[in-house]
Order: sequence, then structure tokens, then C-alpha cells
Amino acid sequence: MTVAERGFPTAEFRARLKAAQSRMEKAGLAALLLTTEPELRYFSGYLTRFWESPTRPWFLIVPAVGDPVAVIPAIGAALMGRTWITDIRTWRAPDLKDDGVTLLTDTLHQLVGPSGRIGLPMGHESHLRMPLADYARLARGLAPIQLVDDAGIMRALRMVKSAAEIEKIRKACGIADRAFARVPEIATEGVPLDQVFRRFQMLCLEEGADWVPYLAGASETGGYGDVISPATPDPLARGDVLMLDTGLIWDGYFCDFDRNFAVGESSPAIDAAHARLIEAVATAMQIAKPGIPAADLFHAMDRIVTGGAGGSDAGRLGHGLGMQLTEWPSLIPTDDTILQDGMVLTLEPCIETSSGRILVHEENIVIWAGGAEFLSTPSAPDIPILKDPA
Amino acid sequence: MTVAERGFPTAEFRARLKAAQSRMEKAGLAALLLTTEPELRYFSGYLTRFWESPTRPWFLIVPAVGDPVAVIPAIGAALMGRTWITDIRTWRAPDLKDDGVTLLTDTLHQLVGPSGRIGLPMGHESHLRMPLADYARLARGLAPIQLVDDAGIMRALRMVKSAAEIEKIRKACGIADRAFARVPEIATEGVPLDQVFRRFQMLCLEEGADWVPYLAGASETGGYGDVISPATPDPLARGDVLMLDTGLIWDGYFCDFDRNFAVGESSPAIDAAHARLIEAVATAMQIAKPGIPAADLFHAMDRIVTGGAGGSDAGRLGHGLGMQLTEWPSLIPTDDTILQDGMVLTLEPCIETSSGRILVHEENIVIWAGGAEFLSTPSAPDIPILKDPA
Repeated sequence: MTVAERGFPTAEFRARLKAAQSRMEKAGLAALLLTTEPELRYFSGYLTRFWESPTRPWFLIVPAVGDPVAVIPAIGAALMGRTWITDIRTWRAPDLKDDGVTLLTDTLHQLVGPSGRIGLPMGHESHLRMPLADYARLARGLAPIQLVDDAGIMRALRMVKSAAEIEKIRKACGIADRAFARVPEIATEGVPLDQVFRRFQMLCLEEGADWVPYLAGASETGGYGDVISPATPDPLARGDVLMLDTGLIWDGYFCDFDRNFAVGESSPAIDAAHARLIEAVATAMQIAKPGIPAADLFHAMDRIVTGGAGGSDAGRLGHGLGMQLTEWPSLIPTDDTILQDGMVLTLEPCIETSSGRILVHEENIVIWAGGAEFLSTPSAPDIPILKDPA
Repeated sequence: MTVAERGFPTAEFRARLKAAQSRMEKAGLAALLLTTEPELRYFSGYLTRFWESPTRPWFLIVPAVGDPVAVIPAIGAALMGRTWITDIRTWRAPDLKDDGVTLLTDTLHQLVGPSGRIGLPMGHESHLRMPLADYARLARGLAPIQLVDDAGIMRALRMVKSAAEIEKIRKACGIADRAFARVPEIATEGVPLDQVFRRFQMLCLEEGADWVPYLAGASETGGYGDVISPATPDPLARGDVLMLDTGLIWDGYFCDFDRNFAVGESSPAIDAAHARLIEAVATAMQIAKPGIPAADLFHAMDRIVTGGAGGSDAGRLGHGLGMQLTEWPSLIPTDDTILQDGMVLTLEPCIETSSGRILVHEENIVIWAGGAEFLSTPSAPDIPILKDPA
């Protein structure tokens, strides 16, 4: 196991580019046109929180031959200039009349030739990060060049992580492990849940997170109603189950897992539900290896948490993980994606404790040729109990 | 001035709906179809950090008559059920074959009639948060109903804030004010910049931020190269200018402003540049009122920071602010948006200190009928000096 370092060597970007171009040749694509944060970062290493501003579009072109070309707002030129990308074309954005569209159109004409096909991610879990009106204008300006689906190339590439990517996710998981271990410092009966949320994010930062894009959770009796709600100011009550689910970032890579705690005391029903969730994870781990479909992990866990009823409204029992909080594949009955060496997944079984009440547990794993390894430190069957305030 | 409270009364959502429907009638739109986080939240109050997961699409329909209809993944039903929205239609997502498209198509057919026009935000600073392939399928399923531009309705509505929205932004600004006042606790010569970033985010949380989606900055001699970079591990050096620019959230609303600090000592050039930035802000404040174009604020500041050269590569000297870190309008020469009572803006002058080195200062303001008011506590002309470590 290597030690995680910031950034990637240029060789890693060259390997990604080569793999993309090999697939592009098979798919008959003259270029990929990319618009979202993880897509640009995957090929360039361009890492900034400035994507939080929705104002400006950003473009990266991966041609069938040659290095990627960045077509970006001038405000990003200095930072992009510190990546391995050398062909950086800029305009002064925002431009209300022509926000990069002419520059992008001209660049694509130059790179693609008169009748190529340009691939964009158009499938599940993708979106286009530019105004629809500008996309229509781009399509008109490119004709007869066609904008088509990327044939799943971005998905296929990003779904399998490199050793360096896995070390970054491992590092993020370690940070969250340490923060979760310190939850007893900040959460006891009577503390408002929103204060727990603030303090937990502070723990994540203190333990080394670059930032904390995601935190959800709840504290309710006998389980919670959902797993995506923001905090309320309600104080933790004795007998509650407190759940915290975090996606924190280290060097641009996420962890995504949760932990459950019993406030003051547990109950036989909660003890049993928590132990069942841990059992579900352990069962999935036994079969997780290259060559099986993602759906098999779903069924292995679903048999334990529902008796094989086919899951819950949450819709899946885990998913891919990497530059985004959630990525392909999905652990659902219909996802037949074959697991490969280097895939990073969450196992996220959900159990109903009573009508409308659930418990969810989540771990992060990596698939190796020889089997699966935990990236998060797996929880024991016993739910941790947060002691009464002194 | 009212005290900021969480959420909004239903009357506020009804007023937004009424204003939208009035504009829709004029524009001949049978419905609005919305897909992004702020668009859904604007009409529903649906607030969750779960949007960090790109997997699932979410839809809100604002019909020409009647209340909004949510078409969302089942995982969000419980939380949406706690808003004022009552017509909530769900599917179990992710569904690899039909991720809500049929449900959305059927719902739109039902609401819109056989030949209406449905508006989506397609213009500047907008995007569509659903896969392009599903959008194409939706368009085919709706024909002869057309998907058209929303005629700028979302932009026009969101650009003017209600009193309750302004109080939330004010609260966010106050939290950042207090965090910036404590920077001397965490930043002195020798502290690595990435540690300053972590500690500053902790201060924001300790002072009351719900979360901290945005932080950028730099610490360099004589000014910095850009304003969007993540932290390096380089230690702060005597004579550096440290800049921290944060967008933190309180109850779903952002502040967005920065502060500059001299590490250990300043220089006459930095002193002068900082004072010039403060002067630029003060000059813009004198003219900021309803009825003038946004471009006038640009020119007022540009005359002071460049002598009227027309700005820099950053492209603008301020922007709108609200549910997103950056919103319309832009303070650029070509934005002739007329300022209105209730608009919240940033004033963000940028000055070049030497070739490739800049200083940027930023404040947040609200436009009232009688003039402008600072929401951030405005900085003094003197740059604060971070004392040497004890």
C-alpha cells in the first residue's frame, strides 16, 4: 500500500488519455466534449472549489489523437496552467452575448475535421453543464459534425480506479473513521442535532478533511424516517438512534459512509437491527470480487435485511464512489455491471425497524483480484452507546 | 429588521408561485419544468445536501394554474412531504431503464393539455440537471407539446429577494464577519496555508454556519496570481498577503466575501492597493440604488482600480448572491440589468499590484429604495496585519 500524495503524476493522466482514445477509436468518436467538474478533473487534474459558482461554463476536449485542449474562462487560466494541460484557450467570462460558444465551436472544428462525431456523456448519472440555449447554438455551429452519446466511455473509465485514486479514497475514509471515533465528544443527550452536525464537520476538518461537502443524518426514536435530511435544532433524546452520514473530501476524492449511535441506551430491537446490518455487509464482503454482477451484492444484503423482498424506497444498497459522492454502478437488482479489480463501492444496507422507520449502515470497500478490502474501518455488530452527560 | 428564522411561511411560496404564474401567462407558458437544486427549492422549500449525489434526477412542475407538483425519487418523499407541496409523485430511483421519464411525461401531459409550451431555464447561468438522453426522450414523449426557454422568468424572480431571504443572507454574512475577525487566532507566519483553510472552515462552523461549500484563497508576496485556487501546504511567509474568500451557508442562503491580511508586515504598495479597493467599494455604494444599470457599478469601481481600462480577466467586479454563491446580474460593462429594490449583490473590485499579481476585495450589499446597505461589515482602508507568532 502506497501513501496517498496530493495530485497525480503526468503519467497517470497520459494513461487515462490513452485508455479513452482507445475506446474512442472503437466507438468512432473524433473527440469527447466534457463540461462537468469530475469530467474535466479526470483528464486534467484541475481541482478548484470554484465550480460552486454556476455562472461560467468550462470545457475540455479530448481529441482522438493528441492531448486534451481546455476551453475555459480566463479566470481559470492561471490554475489550469499549473496542470499538465498546455493547450489552454480562454475567453473573458461572463460574456452575455457569446459565453465561450464561438471559441469552443472553432476549436472543435479545428480538432475534429469536417464530419466527425463528438461524444458527450448523455446517459444515466450524467448531465450537461452549460446552458441549453448555448448547447443548441453549438450544435448548429458544428453541423454537419454531430454531438452524440459518448458510448459510456466516461463511465467505463471512471468506474475503475487507479492505485493512486484508491489511496486518496482510503485517506478520506481514515479521516472520517477518526472523526466518527470522536462523536462521543460532541454528542450526548440534550445537545441539539444541528450543533452535533456543526461539531462533526469541525471534527472532520480537524482530522484532515479538505472540506466536507456532504453531511446528512437524524436522531429519532426507534430509527429514522429518511437518510437525506438536514439537521433540526431538536436536542438528542435518550433512546434515540443518532445517524451521521458524511461525504468528506481529501485531494478531490470522497469517502461516503455513516455510523449509528444509541443515545444513552439502546433497545433489543435496535441492537438486532444494527447487528443485522453488519451481518449484511459481512455477507456481501464474502462474495465481492471481480467477475460478479453488482446486483449480486444487492441480493446478498437484501436477503438479510428484508428476507429477499427486493429492497426499499431508498432504491439501492450501495453504489460507486470516487471523485463524486455517488457514482456508478448501483447495487440494485437490475444493475448487471460486472465488478472489476479497482472498483470502489459503498455497501449500504437499509433495514426497516417499524413502519416508516429505518436504520442504514454504510461501509466503503475496494474490489481487488483476490476479493474485497474495507477502506473504512468496519463497524462491530454492537451499536455504540453515547453515554449520558456527566 | 426582522430576525432570521429557518424556513419560510407558506405565504412566501404562494407569493413566488403567483408571481411566476403571472409571468407565465404573459409568456404563454403552460408550465415551468425545473430540475436544479435552487429552482426546486425556490418554489418548494425542499432543502437537503443530498444534491451532492449526482445519481438521481429531481423534477418540479409549476403549472399555469394550481400548485406545484413534485416528481421525485422515492428516497426524497419523506422530506418533500414536510414542505408545503402536497402533490408528490415518486419512482424508485435509480431505475436504469426509465429513471422517472415516463412518470414525468405522464404528469406533464396531465397538467399541460395537448398543445402547451413548457418553459425551462435555458439561458445564461442555467443548466439542465438530467441526462441529455432522457431529455431527448422526454421531448419525444411530449410532442406536440414543446419544451422552450422559460423567457427569463426564473432569473427575473430569483434576482429580487424577499425580506426573509435578505435576513438569511444577512445572517450568513454575520457568521463570516465573526469568523474573519478570528483569523488572527489561526493564521501567522509559518502556519501552512492548508491548515489555515481547515481552521477557517472550523471557525465558520463554530460561529454558526450550517456548512461551508466554498473557500478559496492564497498567501503570496505582493498579491496573488488568482482567486480560485485550493490551498497549498506552503507556510505563510512574512510579507505575504493572505486572502480568504468564503461562501458559507445559513438555512440555504450564501454569503460570499473575502478578506485580505498582511502576514507580519505590509508594504506601501499593498497598503495603497488595499485602500484603493476599499475606495472602489465606497464609490459604488454611493451610486447603488434602484434604477441604475448593473454596468454603472462596474464602471464606478473600474475607474478607481484600473483608471477605467475595462476590468480584468476575472471578468467582473461583482454579481448577484442568494441561494447560489453567484447569481445574476454580473457587474460587467455589458450587463444593463436595472437594479431593483431587494437585489443582493457582491462588490468585488480587483486591482493589479504587479504583472500577474492581484488583490481582490469583496463586500455583500442589498439594494433598497433609498440606497444600498452593507450586509457584510465593510472593511477599513488599512489592511489588517497578522502579528508574528509569540
